[in-house]
Amino acid sequence: MAKKRRLLAHHAAKPAGNHVDAQAETLATLIEYGPDEHDLRETCFTSLAQGQGFQPSHGTLWLNIHGLGNHALLQEVARRFKLHPLTLEDILNTGQRSKVETFEHYLYIVAKLARFDDASGCVLTEQISIVLGRGWVLTFQEHPSGTFGEVRDQLRKGAGQVRRLGADYLVYALLDKLVDRYFGVLEALGERVETLEDVVLESPKPEVLTHIHALRREMLYLRRALWPMREVLNALQRDDADFFLSETQIYLRDVYDHAVHLIEAQEMLRDMIGSLTDFYMSNQGNRLNREMRMLTVIATIFMPLTFIAGVYGMNFEYMPELKWHYGYATVLALMATLGLGMGLFFWRRRWL
Amino acid sequence: MAKKRRLLAHHAAKPAGNHVDAQAETLATLIEYGPDEHDLRETCFTSLAQGQGFQPSHGTLWLNIHGLGNHALLQEVARRFKLHPLTLEDILNTGQRSKVETFEHYLYIVAKLARFDDASGCVLTEQISIVLGRGWVLTFQEHPSGTFGEVRDQLRKGAGQVRRLGADYLVYALLDKLVDRYFGVLEALGERVETLEDVVLESPKPEVLTHIHALRREMLYLRRALWPMREVLNALQRDDADFFLSETQIYLRDVYDHAVHLIEAQEMLRDMIGSLTDFYMSNQGNRLNREMRMLTVIATIFMPLTFIAGVYGMNFEYMPELKWHYGYATVLALMATLGLGMGLFFWRRRWL
Amino acid sequence: MAKKRRLLAHHAAKPAGNHVDAQAETLATLIEYGPDEHDLRETCFTSLAQGQGFQPSHGTLWLNIHGLGNHALLQEVARRFKLHPLTLEDILNTGQRSKVETFEHYLYIVAKLARFDDASGCVLTEQISIVLGRGWVLTFQEHPSGTFGEVRDQLRKGAGQVRRLGADYLVYALLDKLVDRYFGVLEALGERVETLEDVVLESPKPEVLTHIHALRREMLYLRRALWPMREVLNALQRDDADFFLSETQIYLRDVYDHAVHLIEAQEMLRDMIGSLTDFYMSNQGNRLNREMRMLTVIATIFMPLTFIAGVYGMNFEYMPELKWHYGYATVLALMATLGLGMGLFFWRRRWL
Amino acid sequence: MAKKRRLLAHHAAKPAGNHVDAQAETLATLIEYGPDEHDLRETCFTSLAQGQGFQPSHGTLWLNIHGLGNHALLQEVARRFKLHPLTLEDILNTGQRSKVETFEHYLYIVAKLARFDDASGCVLTEQISIVLGRGWVLTFQEHPSGTFGEVRDQLRKGAGQVRRLGADYLVYALLDKLVDRYFGVLEALGERVETLEDVVLESPKPEVLTHIHALRREMLYLRRALWPMREVLNALQRDDADFFLSETQIYLRDVYDHAVHLIEAQEMLRDMIGSLTDFYMSNQGNRLNREMRMLTVIATIFMPLTFIAGVYGMNFEYMPELKWHYGYATVLALMATLGLGMGLFFWRRRWL
Amino acid sequence: MAKKRRLLAHHAAKPAGNHVDAQAETLATLIEYGPDEHDLRETCFTSLAQGQGFQPSHGTLWLNIHGLGNHALLQEVARRFKLHPLTLEDILNTGQRSKVETFEHYLYIVAKLARFDDASGCVLTEQISIVLGRGWVLTFQEHPSGTFGEVRDQLRKGAGQVRRLGADYLVYALLDKLVDRYFGVLEALGERVETLEDVVLESPKPEVLTHIHALRREMLYLRRALWPMREVLNALQRDDADFFLSETQIYLRDVYDHAVHLIEAQEMLRDMIGSLTDFYMSNQGNRLNREMRMLTVIATIFMPLTFIAGVYGMNFEYMPELKWHYGYATVLALMATLGLGMGLFFWRRRWL
Repeated sequence: MAKKRRLLAHHAAKPAGNHVDAQAETLATLIEYGPDEHDLRETCFTSLAQGQGFQPSHGTLWLNIHGLGNHALLQEVARRFKLHPLTLEDILNTGQRSKVETFEHYLYIVAKLARFDDASGCVLTEQISIVLGRGWVLTFQEHPSGTFGEVRDQLRKGAGQVRRLGADYLVYALLDKLVDRYFGVLEALGERVETLEDVVLESPKPEVLTHIHALRREMLYLRRALWPMREVLNALQRDDADFFLSETQIYLRDVYDHAVHLIEAQEMLRDMIGSLTDFYMSNQGNRLNREMRMLTVIATIFMPLTFIAGVYGMNFEYMPELKWHYGYATVLALMATLGLGMGLFFWRRRWL
Repeated sequence: MAKKRRLLAHHAAKPAGNHVDAQAETLATLIEYGPDEHDLRETCFTSLAQGQGFQPSHGTLWLNIHGLGNHALLQEVARRFKLHPLTLEDILNTGQRSKVETFEHYLYIVAKLARFDDASGCVLTEQISIVLGRGWVLTFQEHPSGTFGEVRDQLRKGAGQVRRLGADYLVYALLDKLVDRYFGVLEALGERVETLEDVVLESPKPEVLTHIHALRREMLYLRRALWPMREVLNALQRDDADFFLSETQIYLRDVYDHAVHLIEAQEMLRDMIGSLTDFYMSNQGNRLNREMRMLTVIATIFMPLTFIAGVYGMNFEYMPELKWHYGYATVLALMATLGLGMGLFFWRRRWL
Repeated sequence: MAKKRRLLAHHAAKPAGNHVDAQAETLATLIEYGPDEHDLRETCFTSLAQGQGFQPSHGTLWLNIHGLGNHALLQEVARRFKLHPLTLEDILNTGQRSKVETFEHYLYIVAKLARFDDASGCVLTEQISIVLGRGWVLTFQEHPSGTFGEVRDQLRKGAGQVRRLGADYLVYALLDKLVDRYFGVLEALGERVETLEDVVLESPKPEVLTHIHALRREMLYLRRALWPMREVLNALQRDDADFFLSETQIYLRDVYDHAVHLIEAQEMLRDMIGSLTDFYMSNQGNRLNREMRMLTVIATIFMPLTFIAGVYGMNFEYMPELKWHYGYATVLALMATLGLGMGLFFWRRRWL
Repeated sequence: MAKKRRLLAHHAAKPAGNHVDAQAETLATLIEYGPDEHDLRETCFTSLAQGQGFQPSHGTLWLNIHGLGNHALLQEVARRFKLHPLTLEDILNTGQRSKVETFEHYLYIVAKLARFDDASGCVLTEQISIVLGRGWVLTFQEHPSGTFGEVRDQLRKGAGQVRRLGADYLVYALLDKLVDRYFGVLEALGERVETLEDVVLESPKPEVLTHIHALRREMLYLRRALWPMREVLNALQRDDADFFLSETQIYLRDVYDHAVHLIEAQEMLRDMIGSLTDFYMSNQGNRLNREMRMLTVIATIFMPLTFIAGVYGMNFEYMPELKWHYGYATVLALMATLGLGMGLFFWRRRWL
Repeated sequence: MAKKRRLLAHHAAKPAGNHVDAQAETLATLIEYGPDEHDLRETCFTSLAQGQGFQPSHGTLWLNIHGLGNHALLQEVARRFKLHPLTLEDILNTGQRSKVETFEHYLYIVAKLARFDDASGCVLTEQISIVLGRGWVLTFQEHPSGTFGEVRDQLRKGAGQVRRLGADYLVYALLDKLVDRYFGVLEALGERVETLEDVVLESPKPEVLTHIHALRREMLYLRRALWPMREVLNALQRDDADFFLSETQIYLRDVYDHAVHLIEAQEMLRDMIGSLTDFYMSNQGNRLNREMRMLTVIATIFMPLTFIAGVYGMNFEYMPELKWHYGYATVLALMATLGLGMGLFFWRRRWL
């Protein structure tokens, strides 16, 4: 179930509301701020009525919305900020691919927040929509994830460049936090790969294969979230409509470098998993074959011995050896010599 | 048979009529509409005679034709709308690859409608030809598929933008419906992949391989339909001849995003099938090898026991153990000890 | 032998004549025509003397030459049409790769005619050189292949556009016929793939592998002929020297689409062969392993039975069971129970 | 541990100082020089107080810093040379990917120094930051590596072009040394591959697989360091901000060629390892299978012999052969004939 | 040893002389020629003293140098022709990658001469440096290879265009000869592939694998020499500095086509080797498995027979069959029936 939703989250456009959890309460947080230390106003509201009064002030305005169930509120927001109907549809339809779309007076960014669920060993992604206008930023999330908390704290403290530089720097800061989260996911996956590598090198059990298979699938999901993120960051750098000032461009280049770094690390992990699988398979195959050879060697050693016993178990009347007093001892000695000789022979060839 | 037709549907250009089911009745539906609510006229005709009177009005004209058997009608349509002979040939020759061709006064789009036939587990495609002129749209289908019904309903209701925006938006709406159908196909294939995954993880049977093989072939067909569709949507965005207004371009970009999303999901499914095959093969190979090892272990345990029995079955006259009263019991005890010892040894190594 | 010639047909430039069958009679056919119905003159000649009189008339001139053994004639033709020495060398050296070369007053096209030899199951290719000047076309073939017959018939009938449009349309018509031949080759290969698929799914024999291997090699040869053909057709579309009128360009685009279609079908066949090989190998491996398991199961069942028989074959003096009247029957019953029990056990696990 | 740090060295930007060994003493070496033989001044200092007096002179200034623990010094350097905060962060955060960043008045190059640790068989990399301004060069290393020693010696000797040409040539000389180190790494890896190849061809042991697996991983690390280096060198050639004079560009092209050469050699090694693994696996598989066949042949030879012995061990009262005086000898002869015959048969087929 | 030198021939720039065989005598051949038949002067000298008098005349000058041990001579040449220090270094350092470098007044081409050493089955390459100035050509080789002999003969005969066209055509002629040599190498490799293919199809022996492995490695070396050659020829066609006249460009295009042809043939050989390996492995695996199955079948047939013999070898006092006069004959008949029946059964399934 969950798997399927991950594969084909985006279905064709349907009436909004099918896609998101309508039960989830919608919480809007409005922050208006300027470069001055005390120039910050923060408002929270959960319904349209509460939020009706807000008006863009002279500074930078950041409206963050958690939970996409309150359509009336969202439509009102879309109307006030003059969002294109397709943008609103994409915000509500949380199965989009990461992308950037330039509209006349704003830039619409769909990004994916990734986290690693340790319990299930799954890579989970969530859609974050960011709208960057001139002087204002809107962000839309399905659930509160705490990712933007650090940025909010910086704003409140009046520290860093985030207060001095405008809305475009805020978007950079948010994207930076999003990309940071991927490092955690990769680290978790990397640890799993190394654990598996140790297991394979030391005491390979057949279950390893199931773990490798699961890990490969998670890598596919991560990869699918990561590549479009790089495209997004690359597209932002090319940004022709000048939503980003050149001062912020340098920072964007930095996040882009992080994304490239992430993709390389991810590709390397992929190669390592592939190489590990090959190694495990070859090793396992060799091991089983050698074990089979050992068992067959044992059978091969007993074969002629049993044959000899069979020969002297025959009931011919005239079998001179049988009458001989030392016959039994001689045959036993012969068998022992033969058995030990063969054993030694195979031992030397390392087949035993 | 069917397979071959899917592989090489397009043969070299032959006289039209070979390619399509000449028996299928041709049904033309003409819709003329403008932005006003009541400005919509709908006409149906099945032969040339009935349709002779239609004249492009001031609004937008959409002529949809089902069944391509009535050549006289099609040629008359081609003549009236000044279609190039190659265009008519391509419309009739339903094995084209999806493509866009720009002619002086119209744009010719060949698209593929895909659906998943649940009974046979096959991906089936059908050719849809769309001709976009200035103010008019022609669509040609082999069989009625119901794909465009929703668009027709929207037009009739006078709802949405489809009435307000012109012929280019209509083409967008039709392409959107076509692309939507692929989501259904991918979902059906995705479900099959997951079912197979469950089967492989739980109780792999050899038949699984045949199913995987079949699924891989269907993925090839889907891929072959999907990639050119993306190229078509990409080409439409670059449309130099301005058949699409910039207002509609934003919508085209959206359908294009959907197509990219589809291709990624399809590639991921492909990877998943590949990974699943590898996993199944490795698992199956390991399993069989372990079973063989177990069987060989059993043989290896009985080998020395049988040998001992053979030894005391020998007919030497002088074999002191045979005379001993507890000889039999001792040997039996020895055999039991040996057999159990070996069994325990292999059990501990998990070979049994 | 034949294989090697196919691999490295083109050696470094050597004196012309080594490369072609010097024995083959050279037959030149000259067709001059204009748009008017009766404006067509056809001349055949086999030696220089016969052909000396021909002079380009006001219409379009098409000189087709079969058999490249008559160097005097070919050099005379090259001299009259001012062909570059490299062009003549390439015409005679029939191991070229398909290519287009633009010279000052003509366009030189090397194309490959492919056919499938049903007897040997080989893809055979032959070089066709086409020279397009302003108002004239030269074609050079090693052997008469009948490919251009249809075009000649159209010219004679005065039907179609071929008479009305000029030399460039004639070249299009010839290329179209060449590309059409590839569809036949692909169809033949496709049929072989399907036959093999049926064999593999129903009754796989080891010989299948040899057939698959052979088919893969033929795919390589086809691929090697097909890809440069696409490049040629693509290059012709970009034709900067305006040898093709824009009216003919639309037709070239159509042949190009066919070539793309061919390549996709060929790639798909390739994938199908690959997938088939994998499937065959996996299936065959699984099957053999299961058979081995079955045989080993039989041995495993008899192992303990033989052991029991061995025990009661021992010659101890004191073996109470041996004296017992029902001993034999009991042991037989025990053996039967054990044997059947194990048989049932393995039967239930589907190992028998 | 070490492995993980190599995979994901760069985490999201954290307060500087976490990333580098704060214990390592920071040693700054300042060299100022001009084209004249005696125009070279060298200063060493370990703390801010010592270095406070340095002032860029009229010549070229090279400040090399080992150990990044002294933040006060580094920040002072950054302030004096007006480095962007992101640059300082990247210098301290030693897990960057190799890259070039152009700032208004300087070029920031992150490069990776690679060396092969013979003891562990690991490829180790270290980050070298190079800042090229107009007339000055800054280099930052974690540990003294001796790589730049040769350049320093050349400067001191007043020999070569390094004194005559300016700061850009100095950067070329440093990069050249860095790239040279990769040749040593590749050579060490190449020797390992050849040693493994000899082992595989002569006396393959199962441990070989572990070595091959380890080598593949090191190749991945090398590859990951090498490719961005090539990008860096390529980017420097395109250098739009003219930090490199055209005279130096020719030299940069040369280092770039070396990097391309390195990548090709590395890719070739990769292919060789892949091919070696395949060969080893196939060879090993074949070998084990042949050994199993040999063992099974031995069992197969004894099977009928044991059966014959079993037949004459039966206790039927009426078995005429048993009474016959030569019965035993005849059966022994029969067994010998049968055994040797089968042995010969299998020997001829080379199964023994 | 030799292998390593092939892998990493180019180390970082070291003092010249390490790289080349200093013992090899240096032989310089100077040819000056013009379009007139008798306008050709040829001079040979082995030391600087002898060569001191040469002065570029009005025609074309070609200085060919074999053996790079005489540094004094080479430096004098470099000085007279104003070669950049890097060029001289690259000439002496014979492990360069094929490349073209444009300097102000000359073009420096590094090319690789390949030949196939039949004895060792190795592809050997040698570096040829070509310097094309305005009116003069310098060529540098390690050993005399006879490759340029043909060109020299043409010059002496005053035949062909080589005398009429200038220095650029001479370079084309030399490159053409170099590329021609590759055809020989590919042919030799192609023959080996076919021989191996025949061996694999008819009587596969395990040694085949070693041959295939060796061939794959040689393909890697050839590939590594061939690809940069194509790049060189491509770069020459783009030649912006106009060292090649447009008349010669047509000829360069021809050599380029040859190189593309070579690469395609090489890639095809590579595919064929890959496909051959797969086929061999599959075939061999299947064969061994079938043989194992046959042997196991034999064991399986004797298993129940031996069991029956064991049953009647038991020593129970009351075993009625043993008393029966026809007991022995009946049991023998039973065994024969069972054995033959099983044999027939397995024969029919083709397992024997």
